[in-house]
Amino acid sequence: MSSNMTEKLIAAHLTSGDMRPGEEIGLRIDQALIQDATGTMVMLELEALGLDRVHTELAAQYVDHNLLQTDERNMADHVFLRSACRRYGIWHSRPGNGVSHPTHMQYFGMPGKTLAGSDSHTCAAGSLGMLAIGVGGLEVAMAMAGQPLFVTMPEIWGVRLTGALPPWVSAKDVILEMLRRHGVRGGVHRIIEYHGPALATLSAMDRHVIANMGAELGATTSVFPADKQVLEFLRAQGRAADHTELAADPGAGYDLEEEIDLSTLEPLIARPGSPGNVIPVRQATGEPVHQVVVGSSANPGLRDFAVVAEILRGRQVHPQVSLDVNPTSRQILIDLTKMGAITTLIEAGARIHQTGCLGCIGMGQAPAVGRNSLRTFPRNFPGRSGTHDDSVWLCSPETAAVAALTGAITDPRDLGLDHPRVPLPRTVSLGTALLEAPLPPDAAQRVELAKAPSIGSLPELEPLPDSLTLPVVLKVGDDISTDEIMPAGARALPYRSNIEALADFAYTQIDPDYPRRAREAGPHAIVGGRNYGQGSSREHAAIVPRYLGLRVVIAKSFARIHWQNLANFGVLPLEFADESDYDRIGRELHFEGLRKAVENGTELTVDGIVLRHRLSARQRAMVLAGGWIPLSRQSR
Amino acid sequence: MSSNMTEKLIAAHLTSGDMRPGEEIGLRIDQALIQDATGTMVMLELEALGLDRVHTELAAQYVDHNLLQTDERNMADHVFLRSACRRYGIWHSRPGNGVSHPTHMQYFGMPGKTLAGSDSHTCAAGSLGMLAIGVGGLEVAMAMAGQPLFVTMPEIWGVRLTGALPPWVSAKDVILEMLRRHGVRGGVHRIIEYHGPALATLSAMDRHVIANMGAELGATTSVFPADKQVLEFLRAQGRAADHTELAADPGAGYDLEEEIDLSTLEPLIARPGSPGNVIPVRQATGEPVHQVVVGSSANPGLRDFAVVAEILRGRQVHPQVSLDVNPTSRQILIDLTKMGAITTLIEAGARIHQTGCLGCIGMGQAPAVGRNSLRTFPRNFPGRSGTHDDSVWLCSPETAAVAALTGAITDPRDLGLDHPRVPLPRTVSLGTALLEAPLPPDAAQRVELAKAPSIGSLPELEPLPDSLTLPVVLKVGDDISTDEIMPAGARALPYRSNIEALADFAYTQIDPDYPRRAREAGPHAIVGGRNYGQGSSREHAAIVPRYLGLRVVIAKSFARIHWQNLANFGVLPLEFADESDYDRIGRELHFEGLRKAVENGTELTVDGIVLRHRLSARQRAMVLAGGWIPLSRQSR
Repeated sequence: MSSNMTEKLIAAHLTSGDMRPGEEIGLRIDQALIQDATGTMVMLELEALGLDRVHTELAAQYVDHNLLQTDERNMADHVFLRSACRRYGIWHSRPGNGVSHPTHMQYFGMPGKTLAGSDSHTCAAGSLGMLAIGVGGLEVAMAMAGQPLFVTMPEIWGVRLTGALPPWVSAKDVILEMLRRHGVRGGVHRIIEYHGPALATLSAMDRHVIANMGAELGATTSVFPADKQVLEFLRAQGRAADHTELAADPGAGYDLEEEIDLSTLEPLIARPGSPGNVIPVRQATGEPVHQVVVGSSANPGLRDFAVVAEILRGRQVHPQVSLDVNPTSRQILIDLTKMGAITTLIEAGARIHQTGCLGCIGMGQAPAVGRNSLRTFPRNFPGRSGTHDDSVWLCSPETAAVAALTGAITDPRDLGLDHPRVPLPRTVSLGTALLEAPLPPDAAQRVELAKAPSIGSLPELEPLPDSLTLPVVLKVGDDISTDEIMPAGARALPYRSNIEALADFAYTQIDPDYPRRAREAGPHAIVGGRNYGQGSSREHAAIVPRYLGLRVVIAKSFARIHWQNLANFGVLPLEFADESDYDRIGRELHFEGLRKAVENGTELTVDGIVLRHRLSARQRAMVLAGGWIPLSRQSR
Repeated sequence: MSSNMTEKLIAAHLTSGDMRPGEEIGLRIDQALIQDATGTMVMLELEALGLDRVHTELAAQYVDHNLLQTDERNMADHVFLRSACRRYGIWHSRPGNGVSHPTHMQYFGMPGKTLAGSDSHTCAAGSLGMLAIGVGGLEVAMAMAGQPLFVTMPEIWGVRLTGALPPWVSAKDVILEMLRRHGVRGGVHRIIEYHGPALATLSAMDRHVIANMGAELGATTSVFPADKQVLEFLRAQGRAADHTELAADPGAGYDLEEEIDLSTLEPLIARPGSPGNVIPVRQATGEPVHQVVVGSSANPGLRDFAVVAEILRGRQVHPQVSLDVNPTSRQILIDLTKMGAITTLIEAGARIHQTGCLGCIGMGQAPAVGRNSLRTFPRNFPGRSGTHDDSVWLCSPETAAVAALTGAITDPRDLGLDHPRVPLPRTVSLGTALLEAPLPPDAAQRVELAKAPSIGSLPELEPLPDSLTLPVVLKVGDDISTDEIMPAGARALPYRSNIEALADFAYTQIDPDYPRRAREAGPHAIVGGRNYGQGSSREHAAIVPRYLGLRVVIAKSFARIHWQNLANFGVLPLEFADESDYDRIGRELHFEGLRKAVENGTELTVDGIVLRHRLSARQRAMVLAGGWIPLSRQSR
């Protein structure tokens, strides 16, 4: 029987369950990726689990999010993370090495492997023919401890790419087209598998651009074949030996099918507020622009910066525009420097920032209120930029560069220039040595964790009571992101290792009074709309409200990672059997016989409203125990 | 009669007063410099003064301090500053162009000119044979409005340099030697004039290093002759025509004389807490180092970065160390990139940050508590780094680079390497076009100031009452810096244009309860020790406590700029006639007949304690009126 690429990857790693959409399956995990914003919690979890050394073939920690060091806590986290890497046998990528996804791709990505990462854009590694899934930190910690990764078997969505990109249209426009067609919920419970003849024209890094923002469609992950383009990428990295040819069998089918003829695409842009608000650039021309930011895991490659440099060569940025360039990895920065692209960018007026996520995660680069900022980033959820009432648009490097020149949103095809060809070096600069390799076991066991006082502990979590009276402390609408539930950014991110301190920030983007009311209420519930918890994988968005007393979230539907995170930390995620009950639900909920209802069924009735959960037996046990960590302690 | 260089510069610009030490003199100002952290207030002052267009030959605004943009206020300030530059006929240097002092030196510095700058390191321009004085923002605003700059005529301190620097010793060690000999009060009421045969060996940028940190000695400014080295610098900048040969007359004398034989110097370092805590590096070797930061106006030159790159070439930074590189100007960054130094630094493991002040002003790069940070910066006042209980050392680029390699403080002479020769380009890259020139008057008059709601107004200031009962709300020790009075850094700097919001930060480094007590007390006094208000020129350190009710500061002695700022904003600065009264002074002070005492005398007695002021007639009028702005309104 012929299999598609995704089925092959899953089958090769299946430890439990049936590959039927909706079933929980277990996957053997080859590689683990964490970053600093979620990683401090992962390290505390490894400590709580009593782990001696990671079991995955490879685990890597990247310090890329929290680099501003506006006070003593940032560096204290960095020191802690390095000590934990040394203790547990984890590769350590120091601040300045770059954003996790392109860096991991460059040094560790390998066709056919599974990767679990505590970052929602982990899926970018699908560009190399990996099955790469972004999950909560605790799931990565468990994977590092040798446990399978449990996911709901998704539908497999074959997207056939044909034709070739016209001038001034690039990979970013392909994923923006997917978002234009399907919105931010279009990929939920699906894996997107790209295939078709146009793949031959898309480099591995182009594919990274497309796979990365699969997260914005809500997809479990995206998958590309491992073909000649992947081999070329690995060869340039000096790792041709890591290549394995992998593709769907001829004639393999998909649960859903779709086609994009690349030659029909035009420059696209997502309007402020959501990556799903996509329109053609030509419909927004003339909007004044005050900031342009280039970088992030959504446009991380050498080409993405070099093309901006070529467009700006010999010209100067509009005096009203701040052009901010965030190189994504040390290697890319070195190569851009050697190619002369950095000189061109500086001469044109760019601000070259340190390598890392920076503005993409709201660490600096906040625009002024109401001033348009064009970014090559993956997300523009309200306030994620660090600015209340921000006005952030998402677009390709080409569209960004042209706006930097003109000071207004401009269809790049209108400028009368040639779309620059960017000759890239066939061999890239290698700097692996700046990744610190795991210590040998003997030495690792002697390492002490360097925990500054600003680094907290995991809260103790109690089992689910059998009867509960829960006030609904907050009721929110559709597509609430984890950025809104638990802000990152320059104010909150320094507290990433301290749940108690973070509690003051929970949900404050939506309702500044939530932390106070939640503390006062103690055990409480939140009611949400569709796609509740989209966006970043941060488990803080589950742990922190849980710490404040959250026991039940009732929503029309959940985003995958956040749904898992809630269960992992003992919050019961329930869905309305009938969405219209969202309007009927009361301000206080009375649960009786709750434990039995969760244990034995998938449905329960509260105050006349029917609610369902989609929890597996494994997840039910977690929720009953108060979370995965208390559960795993019980079984020791 | 033969004159020294300083006397010539003063005499050529004298508008009032006698050149006798201690007398107030007025100086015609040719050029004005402001930066964003003080500049927003200057622009509000120009608005309050009703200015149409600046009267100085040249005025320039540099956006270099507040670049992190952790929220919407930063960029709102940038937009405001640019609009004000366009309105008032001021050059605008956008974010990313670089630190004011080296950038001004590169594009506008000119021998024989006077420069008033709202930044304490304005004195760095003394390197080009200018009389460059750092003052409060209001004084720069008045200079822009065509008023003279008033200063107390200082003593002139001739420092004769002989010999030549030995290997591994550089310009930074010369000024550290001055601080080792004389401490942070050694230059108060003095201008330091360097002369002697060793000048031939010191480039204009080396002299910048030395002149810059004259601020740390408390000096009014530092002056170098305009000689062949200056010509060479200007020629490289394409401005040979701006050169004028200027030097002391043969046989000219000084009020004080001193000699440094450069050949006797060794690598020096300032221990944490004060730039005056200088010891030889060899006395601190072995101290573990977690951070090394290179940059700032104290070591801004091409050489200062290139020598670090040469030391690191082919080597890698110790895994425990974060090596942060802050390029000081766009031009220097371009040249370092073209020279290959940036590639070398990245390959060695450095983090290359955007051009600007950054960690030097506590905007990011905060070290962890108790972890040693070595910096080529000018200041290490407690907490200025953004970290409470920080441990910041000041040293040369050579000493910094070597510590980055070894992970410990190391005498660079012990490494067994050759002190690298750094061949510098004879012609530098020019990027003047990125400085936005003043608009012509017609166009300027049509510009509206872009004031976001986060930009406040100047507080209204009332005249000095005749009788006052003032609680002493705070009593502090010696050498209190303006960093302690009014913190900058990532928390407070975003509020630089909003006095009311800033009030919550006043003095909180020393006493977190001061803002509350001051608000409660209303009119109040502060008692200080020696050298009260040293460091940064920020007038916020006067305005904000004044806004909270401060009317009188009694200290053993004052730092020059802060003393002027207090008077400018209507706070009466008094000195103990007998320093031992510092211990006797009560917790409440009763002033009677205060206006007459200030008006007519220099001495007054409060509760049996004799106090003196050194205010000129001009300053007395200001204090009586409640400040310079209310005074100038009276006379309109």
